[in-house]
Amino acid sequence: MKLIVIGGNPAGLSAASAVRRAHPDWIIDVYEKGPYISYGSCGLPYYISGIIEDRDKLITITREQFLEKRNIPVHIYQEVLSVNFDEKIVKVKDINTNEIFEGAYDYLVIATGGKSKMRPEITLEHNHIFHVHTIEDADEVKNFLNGSGLKSGILIGAGYINLELVEAYKAQGINNLTIVGPRLIFRTKSQEYIKKELEKNGIKMVLGKYAKNLEIVSDKRLRVNFEDGESLEADFIQISIGVVPNTDIFEGTKLKMMNGAIVVDEYMRTNIENVFAAGDCATVYHQILKRNTYLPLAPAANKQGRIAGNVIAGNKVDPFFGIVGTSVWKVFDLYCGKTGITETEAKELGYETDSVLIESNEIAHYYPNRGNQFQLKMTTYLLFDVKTHHLLGAEITAPSPLGGKKIDVLATALAAKMKIEDIQKLDLSYAPPFAPVWDPILIAANVARKKCR
Amino acid sequence: MKLIVIGGNPAGLSAASAVRRAHPDWIIDVYEKGPYISYGSCGLPYYISGIIEDRDKLITITREQFLEKRNIPVHIYQEVLSVNFDEKIVKVKDINTNEIFEGAYDYLVIATGGKSKMRPEITLEHNHIFHVHTIEDADEVKNFLNGSGLKSGILIGAGYINLELVEAYKAQGINNLTIVGPRLIFRTKSQEYIKKELEKNGIKMVLGKYAKNLEIVSDKRLRVNFEDGESLEADFIQISIGVVPNTDIFEGTKLKMMNGAIVVDEYMRTNIENVFAAGDCATVYHQILKRNTYLPLAPAANKQGRIAGNVIAGNKVDPFFGIVGTSVWKVFDLYCGKTGITETEAKELGYETDSVLIESNEIAHYYPNRGNQFQLKMTTYLLFDVKTHHLLGAEITAPSPLGGKKIDVLATALAAKMKIEDIQKLDLSYAPPFAPVWDPILIAANVARKKCR
Repeated sequence: MKLIVIGGNPAGLSAASAVRRAHPDWIIDVYEKGPYISYGSCGLPYYISGIIEDRDKLITITREQFLEKRNIPVHIYQEVLSVNFDEKIVKVKDINTNEIFEGAYDYLVIATGGKSKMRPEITLEHNHIFHVHTIEDADEVKNFLNGSGLKSGILIGAGYINLELVEAYKAQGINNLTIVGPRLIFRTKSQEYIKKELEKNGIKMVLGKYAKNLEIVSDKRLRVNFEDGESLEADFIQISIGVVPNTDIFEGTKLKMMNGAIVVDEYMRTNIENVFAAGDCATVYHQILKRNTYLPLAPAANKQGRIAGNVIAGNKVDPFFGIVGTSVWKVFDLYCGKTGITETEAKELGYETDSVLIESNEIAHYYPNRGNQFQLKMTTYLLFDVKTHHLLGAEITAPSPLGGKKIDVLATALAAKMKIEDIQKLDLSYAPPFAPVWDPILIAANVARKKCR
Repeated sequence: MKLIVIGGNPAGLSAASAVRRAHPDWIIDVYEKGPYISYGSCGLPYYISGIIEDRDKLITITREQFLEKRNIPVHIYQEVLSVNFDEKIVKVKDINTNEIFEGAYDYLVIATGGKSKMRPEITLEHNHIFHVHTIEDADEVKNFLNGSGLKSGILIGAGYINLELVEAYKAQGINNLTIVGPRLIFRTKSQEYIKKELEKNGIKMVLGKYAKNLEIVSDKRLRVNFEDGESLEADFIQISIGVVPNTDIFEGTKLKMMNGAIVVDEYMRTNIENVFAAGDCATVYHQILKRNTYLPLAPAANKQGRIAGNVIAGNKVDPFFGIVGTSVWKVFDLYCGKTGITETEAKELGYETDSVLIESNEIAHYYPNRGNQFQLKMTTYLLFDVKTHHLLGAEITAPSPLGGKKIDVLATALAAKMKIEDIQKLDLSYAPPFAPVWDPILIAANVARKKCR
């Protein structure tokens, strides 16, 4: 049997590995367009900032190791141009030689990943405009910044990639930085804590505005024009307005997609027999939204890859009923997390919502905090249905990863469809270096319970 | 109406406060035997070590504040000698004046707390023998150690109080310290990581031995004799062999007790009408053991106090169906947690158990760890039933509180009666400063799943 995997990222490699473990004799080929395999793209901001000094550390496993340990060749600089699903043939271009060849498969795993979202109005060729999606992008930015003398930058997009990158650019000595975007991550008052943290670090914000277009002022100067007629100039522009599935080659084929994301079921099967998809090119079922969605994050991508591989391998495998929408990120010294759905989404689903946002200590008030700020409070936001008392969503901001990672308790509560009173009674751990005696999650649930009917 | 609360600890004060909020006109009296109210006894090791410099910080609220804010008088140095449940009368002794008086109640909350467990064979009067249960004990030890010239100590009992205290004694300049006890906390291989941490910090261990008796060598020297004939000498002895309910005054009364712990139901009602109990003097229902147990820990004590108060106040209140057995503690730079039941307990309940213990990174391997050790691994132990796949228990050791506090995710999974495959699919958060892309809990669940039928 022959397996072809498109994409040498963790999702694709997980799938390939699972198949190999079950079938030492199968022919497995992985085609990767770029020069690297299996790297932690979530680490790129920390590579640019210099927190991660050794670039090689970002790479989990090299091609050579993967071949030696798993007996799976990953062919780099090999771009898959198209797939003929009827003939079960993949057309590949060798980027170095421009040679085009074909490969036949019995099973296909599509793990082409995501790519930076682009808006034509703000797409411009200029070497002071950065996108950071791949390790090569990060190398480019890092090399460029090194001794560049750049003093100011505008970051278009106020999602977590730019919130992480702003710290990296500041660490590289750029002090005049502005984040612009229609809205900051978080839809609630939790947002204020991110704003405060950005302000404390001298980051400017232009929120509630939509970039209309970009203008070249000079070879070292750029301008952003907003729809309201105002504008902003800086030495460079960083654009991160989202991630979209990297699936252009499948447009117009019979492969079923949803807004560009390949639709998969609970076993990572697409609508075409023996064709699987996993990771940032695919949909993921959202347990709280109760529908397929697109949320390209590494944990689900890894789970999907693993399941696709196990299904192809013929192993007994549990279905994957998707995510609840959990993510965490760091904004300077503020550690943030969210899970579940937003108030707007909840109302669309017919829930009668209410919410609480409480401020509390992250650990016992008398124990010295390990964070950079002594005794900075953490915040816990809960969104719930006042009729059924079910938890619907949560947000956290905290002075250390300890507090931010508490979002996992609420993600677990969501997966278990817990009510607020179930959360109130959780037996969460306590000792002074770990938490206050009333864990912030319990305090928030106690307050929320009073708002339930 | 008149409420009497025996015990000025958080459980008793929570109950009193809940009643006061509902009934500004009730007469409420709190009798406390000692000089202090509402302090964090879990902070005592850190007060002795010097991590907490300001002793007043341990006290959450003072008598004066409690009277002013809640209009509840707490009478200190007032020891309750007995309760006449038929007449609804409490007999109290004023410790300062030796005066004895009586107080009548309509509702009674017993929150007498716990006390250090004593074994007659190792009970000896000597000012180099320490117990640390109250703030006065801690003051005494701290004052005594100050310039005492003590060079060696034996800590009898290898539970978490002594594991926390050994660090405190070392911080006070005592370098020759030995922990002795029949067994170290944790019943599994997780134990090895605690041993390593103790060794690394120069702490000796004499485990698997039972202290037979104590001997006075001189006024500054003591000896522990073990049952196997061996013995050990040191300048002082610290004893922490457990905590027992402080309920001697109720022995022989009609108040129902279980091994000294007052039996309460899900509304903190005892077997006697209008008599409630809460906190370390009471039983707590264990959801996984499926029976009442005694596990004196602050979070449940606080929850119980709050519920007792709300029931007495006549408020609508959700029943408290107890704990799952969660606790966390710190051993030098190792942050430990456990939840659920042990293998022995599981087998007694008829489960067919298996377990996994995995070592993994606490955060992304390339991100600098905030702990004292760069890149120390964390361990995750899961105990489960191979037939039904249900999680039964878990243990964690980690280089920072971030990893230790992950035990809460497993405590939540236990409360939700999750199976291993439910845990595998949890949407736990990921970003390099917070976790590896496969959260250690997911890795452990993936390994465990293969051991399930």
